[in-house]
This record gives sequence, structure tokens and C-alpha cells, in this order.
Amino acid sequence: MFKLPRGTRDFTPEEMQKRGYVEEAMRSTFQTFGYREIQTPTFETLELFTAKSGETIIEELYSFTDKGGRELALRPELTAPVIRFYVDKLQMKPKPLKLFYFGNCYRYDRPQKGRYREFKQAGCEIIGTDTPEAYAELIAMAYNILEKAGVKNLELNIGNLNILSSIFSQFKLSKDQQKYLTPLIDKSLFEDVFDALREFGINNDDASALSEILQTSDINKIENFFKDAATNKELEELKKTIGLLEESFCIKNYQIKMSIVRGLDYYKGLVFEIEALLLGAEKQLCGGGAYELITLFDGKETPTAGFAIGFDRTILALEAEKYQFPATKLDVFVIPVNEDMMKKSLEITQNLRKQDISVDVDLLRRGMGKSLKYASSINAHKIIIVGPKELEKDSVTIRDMESGKQEMVKIKDLYQKMK
Amino acid sequence: MFKLPRGTRDFTPEEMQKRGYVEEAMRSTFQTFGYREIQTPTFETLELFTAKSGETIIEELYSFTDKGGRELALRPELTAPVIRFYVDKLQMKPKPLKLFYFGNCYRYDRPQKGRYREFKQAGCEIIGTDTPEAYAELIAMAYNILEKAGVKNLELNIGNLNILSSIFSQFKLSKDQQKYLTPLIDKSLFEDVFDALREFGINNDDASALSEILQTSDINKIENFFKDAATNKELEELKKTIGLLEESFCIKNYQIKMSIVRGLDYYKGLVFEIEALLLGAEKQLCGGGAYELITLFDGKETPTAGFAIGFDRTILALEAEKYQFPATKLDVFVIPVNEDMMKKSLEITQNLRKQDISVDVDLLRRGMGKSLKYASSINAHKIIIVGPKELEKDSVTIRDMESGKQEMVKIKDLYQKMK
Repeated sequence: MFKLPRGTRDFTPEEMQKRGYVEEAMRSTFQTFGYREIQTPTFETLELFTAKSGETIIEELYSFTDKGGRELALRPELTAPVIRFYVDKLQMKPKPLKLFYFGNCYRYDRPQKGRYREFKQAGCEIIGTDTPEAYAELIAMAYNILEKAGVKNLELNIGNLNILSSIFSQFKLSKDQQKYLTPLIDKSLFEDVFDALREFGINNDDASALSEILQTSDINKIENFFKDAATNKELEELKKTIGLLEESFCIKNYQIKMSIVRGLDYYKGLVFEIEALLLGAEKQLCGGGAYELITLFDGKETPTAGFAIGFDRTILALEAEKYQFPATKLDVFVIPVNEDMMKKSLEITQNLRKQDISVDVDLLRRGMGKSLKYASSINAHKIIIVGPKELEKDSVTIRDMESGKQEMVKIKDLYQKMK
Repeated sequence: MFKLPRGTRDFTPEEMQKRGYVEEAMRSTFQTFGYREIQTPTFETLELFTAKSGETIIEELYSFTDKGGRELALRPELTAPVIRFYVDKLQMKPKPLKLFYFGNCYRYDRPQKGRYREFKQAGCEIIGTDTPEAYAELIAMAYNILEKAGVKNLELNIGNLNILSSIFSQFKLSKDQQKYLTPLIDKSLFEDVFDALREFGINNDDASALSEILQTSDINKIENFFKDAATNKELEELKKTIGLLEESFCIKNYQIKMSIVRGLDYYKGLVFEIEALLLGAEKQLCGGGAYELITLFDGKETPTAGFAIGFDRTILALEAEKYQFPATKLDVFVIPVNEDMMKKSLEITQNLRKQDISVDVDLLRRGMGKSLKYASSINAHKIIIVGPKELEKDSVTIRDMESGKQEMVKIKDLYQKMK
């Protein structure tokens, strides 16, 4: 017997029902924000990903050489392909360009709960603007998408990598020292950060101050910390962004968090993350911010920002919150009482389908009892029984599967009855 | 600059609008027929595909060895993965099992119009029944899906591989002779078929008779040709299938075509194809029939049938017929007349979005003239202008972009006005 490749999944009709529902909630939210859907191929040239993320990413990639000798890789993420597409074909479009997409991504990773080798992402980019209103809208959209999908327990954190850099500069930390600190900061290991700062020769008070700035959610405390004009301007913009987020987008449930580092070193300025509180280690549903990638791909410099949402984790978050997904359901199951009734049964079936009613019919000639059992197993809402006596009166019997009520209905009135 | 891999495509918002529309038309038709969506991974173990199609398929595959030494391949088609899924996890479900799916497939092929290295397919399987009513419904669904997507000039051909085999047996053709003939028959090269039959030592009259049977669409002529009980039973079932197709499903626009061979040698009995008359060489949109694959994959024998629809070719067929796809459109574009109006503008924008209206807003502070130009470039239906004088009266100005008419509307009445 053939096996599913490790780290991949088959999705049953019940799972696809959930996934379809969540995808539609996400898509319609992107669309109400004026974003438009695009799509790129499942694989790209290997160098697209190494150019963005460095050679070390090859370790995690599904890469291969095609029969023409090209080095290709299944995409591990969607931003690099989208920016390649933009540079290649969309640079002349009016700005800002608001693009969203869904796509499967691939990482050769150790499979575990919430981490698969083939996983689905939703994402977007806004290209050509870096105003606080654009950023506030972007963050609000990410939040609204997860809300619309149905996730209730969300935590939104907002940081800024330019301000984080300023903090480092304030203490004259070298690039190497910064590199040592960032993973500790990323993991919120602030005691280790403090110890490292002391080892770097920073005095007790300063090390405490720095550690506190990384942990505070009070933007005024951060402001008091800085004297340079550039950082103050960055803080002003951040304050405008969160002001609009609160007042125009009515999102007050957020934290300022200067310790957001994000794995990717191409982020610049604004960064944000949304976590599902009920999930464990793999609780981050969304990450994004402002970044620079267009010039690296030989495009004309223009501001870019975007985010990615883990589709599979969003489903896990909904399941953890016991979200009531709409049930899969069949509107009607038609049962011919004998083989002679088949032709008429199919005709009735087909006419209801033309009215966008979902209808199934006994295709195994198994008789009343077994057909009723089957109809119940596939969650049919109503049953239509086609028998010779009723047909003489141009009628059929309808049974409601929930109430058990039965009635005789003229065939010509069936559609009205079904609505 | 990085290039798109050969034979793959990027899809713009305009193309994705078309594709989304067609996918939804197909999905909703599958659902009205009581089919339920599933999904399998993008890659499978290589041996899954060689078991079904033989070692020669490796030539056409994107295959690779993963970091754990597993031989994998991007799927070239969807039936083998779906049957693997069925055997692995769905065998105990009530029958018949009606499954449909969408998925990208991959073939290392010479790219040309209507043939891509990454292409999308829609498809379905019905597992557990082989009644004429099941087959008539399957064919009708394929036809209805293409009709619902909007394709007008369709040709439906129905054949039967068991009857084709009987024709061969009637003339005592060896396996090798059949193998030589099938590609000629597949390409409708009936003169070559005739010549070959003569070379095989078949007399002029018999060769003519065989060639005629392959070309006739009159099922009675085919019936007169056979004496054996098994073939007559097969013909009876075929007549029942097409009888139901005509009378219950109202599809009369079909041809009987015994020359349908289909590339895959796992088909048994019923086969059918649907072509788009306005397309050239690559005009086949749909192919399907009854087949045996479950036992090869170590599952318990049960009848199976299904079909695949070329999604990309369906789009090409619609384009060839100049189908009017629904336009991409933005309901409203909001323009703040100055920076002070931004906060209120975003608030108005966001409130309309909550009502599922698609709304964009100027995020570049570019003033009235440029904003109007941008709104027009993204096909905004209406404009809302937010200015200080109107705001004093809790109002904004609405302009209809088609008629050019403008009016002042109370903010609280905006949603009513937009519906």
C-alpha cells in the first residue's frame, strides 16, 4: 500500500469544509480592504530564495534540478515570488498596489503539531506607500481577517526594528553583540539579555534601562529614552499609526513590544505579530511589517509592507477555541421506491440542482431502508420519496429529516417548498 | 533579475478574477450533485505514479529525492493520489462516495498554448457504483460544470472500451495488432486503420465494416454487429445510460464514438470526452470514464468512475468564445480632501467594510485630482469625498463614477445609500 509522504496531509470532506469556510472569510476581508488576488508558481529558481534568505535556507528547502538542468525549489514562503512577479510585470501599475494571495509552501522540517512540510499561507503586500494610515490599515486588516475567520483570543504586538536599532546604537553595541542579543530578545529571555549586556561592559543601570525598554509597552517610556531626531520621528510615526489603529479602526487590544525581532533580517521599521492565546509553542498566526526586497531583485526602490498568516494554524486556533464551523450538509436526498421510478427521480433531482439546491439520489438501487440510512449518514436535510401512487397525482413525498414530518407535495411546487 | 521558471505562470488580479469565477462555478456545480471536496498533497512517492502508469512516466515527471532519501514526485495527475487517500482512509465510508477536488499538476513537457508545466485540474471520482444512472449523472455533471462555467460550444463524445475490445476480438486481432491500431484510432486516422487491417490479413469487407463501426454514431448499427451475450449486455447498459442522459438530464447534444481510446490503459467500459469546438489542437476540456485502480493500490475491489477537467483550457475556451467575465470592481474609493480628514476618512472606510462593501482609501496623501485618477484606474464604482464643510453637517459627498452625479449624504445614511 502506498503511503502519504511524511509531513504532508490528506484533507477529508469535513476538513475541507472548514478550510473552505476559513479561506472564504479571509478572501472576502482582503477584498473589502481593496486588495486583489494574485498567484505565482509552486516552484521558483533556487537562487530567488538564496538571494533573499542566504545559502543556509537550502537546508530547509525542497530543491531539485529539472530535466533541463535548472536548479529549482518548492517555495518556502510567498513574499520573494510575489516581489519577483512585481518587479517583472507589475512595476508600472498605479500605486499603491494592494495584492493578496493564498498558496502552499514547503519546508523540509521536523513534522510536529502546527508544523507540516507542506503548509498553506495567506498573505499580502502593499507596495508604494509608507504612511501611518497605510500601516494602521495593514495591521487592522490582519486583525480583522483573523476575527472574521472566527478566532477570538488574539494578542497583537507591535514593534519597530528601526527603534530597536536605535536602542542598540544608544549603547554603542557592535554588530556582533547585536547578533548575539537578538535571538535572546526574540525568545524574551531578558535575564540572559541583561547578563550579556553586563559582560559587554555595560554598567548595571544602563543594562537595566535597556532591558526595561525592551519589556515596556508604554510608548512614553520609550520616547523619554531617546534624544536623536531620527528616532523621535520614527516614534512620532509609530504613535500616529497606533492612534489611527485605535480611533479609526477601533482596535485597542494591542501591546507595544520593542522585543519583536522576527527571523527575517530584511524587515525595516514597523513589525507586528498576532498570536492565538489558546495555542502552545506554535501560537503565532500572523507576522508582518515593512521590508526592503524590491531593490535586491533589481526593481525600482519603493516602500513595501505586508504580512503572512499561517492558514493551518488558524484552523488549529479555531479548533482549540471549539469554533462551531458550519456543518457539511446536503439539502435533499431523492429515493425512488423501485427501479421504474429512477427516470423520474433523476429528472426531479436534476431540476432542483438547476435551482442551486444540492441534491443526491440513490445510485445503488438499494431500496427504502438502506437509502434512508445512507441519507442520514451524509447529513441530508430533507428526503424526497418518488413512488408510483404519488406520481399518479404528479406528486412526491417529502420528509424532513430533523422533525420526521412527512407531506405530499406537487412536483411543480417542489422548488418553492425547498427554499 | 530573477525569472519565472519555464512553463509556469504568474496570474495578475484580472486573471485571478476569471479563475476565481470559474472555480466557484465548478465548485458549486459539484456540490449541487452531492459531491464533497477533498485535497491531497502536491507531491507523492514516485512509485505511486509508476505503479499506475509504468516507468515511462518518469520521463514526464518532476521527481526528486528529499533530504531523507525518499523518492518523490510532483503529481502529474490527481486520480492516483485520490485513490491512495481512499484506500488509506476512506474505504469504510458509506457508498457511493462522491469526491471532487481542485489541484495543480506538473509535467515536464514542451510548453505551448494550452500546455503548461504547472497546470490546474478539477476532477472527481464516484466510488462504489456502476449503474447506468450513476454514469449518466457523472457525464451530465461534467457537461453541466462546463456549461455553468460559461462554455457554449461543447462537443460530448461517449464510447466504451469493453465494446472496443469486443470489436477487436470479433476480428481475432492479437494484442500486438491492437497496440498498433489504438494510436491510429485515437487520432481518427481511419484510412490508416483500414490499411493496417488489410495488412493483418483481414479481407476488404471486414476491414470496411470494422472501420465503419469505429466511425458510426448510430448505436443500432453497433448492436447489429455483435452476437455475444457479454457485449450485448454492455450495449444495453450503454443505451440505458444515454437514455437517462437524454430524458432525465436533458442532454441530447452528444455522439456515440467507439474510437475513443484515451491514453490511460486503466479505463474499463464507459469513457467520455468533452471538447471545446473553438479551441485548436488542445481542445479537450474533459476526459473520464470507469476505471480500475483500487485493487492495484491494495484496496478492496469496488467500481470506480471519474473525470478530469483541464482548468486552464476551460479559461482558454471561454476567452476564445469572448465570454464576458464579471469585471473586477471596487465598490467605493474614499478621498480625504486634506490630511486632517484622514482619521474620519479611515473611520468611514472601515465602517463600510464591516458591511461587506469593498472600500479603498487614499493612502498616499496625493490630493483630489490624483486620487480621482487612481480611483478610476482601479475601477472604483463610487467616490466618497470627505471635506471639512460637509463634515460640519455630519455629511460627505458621494460621486457616482459612471454617471458623474454628485450628492451630499449624511454619514449615518451612507450604508443604505451604498447598497
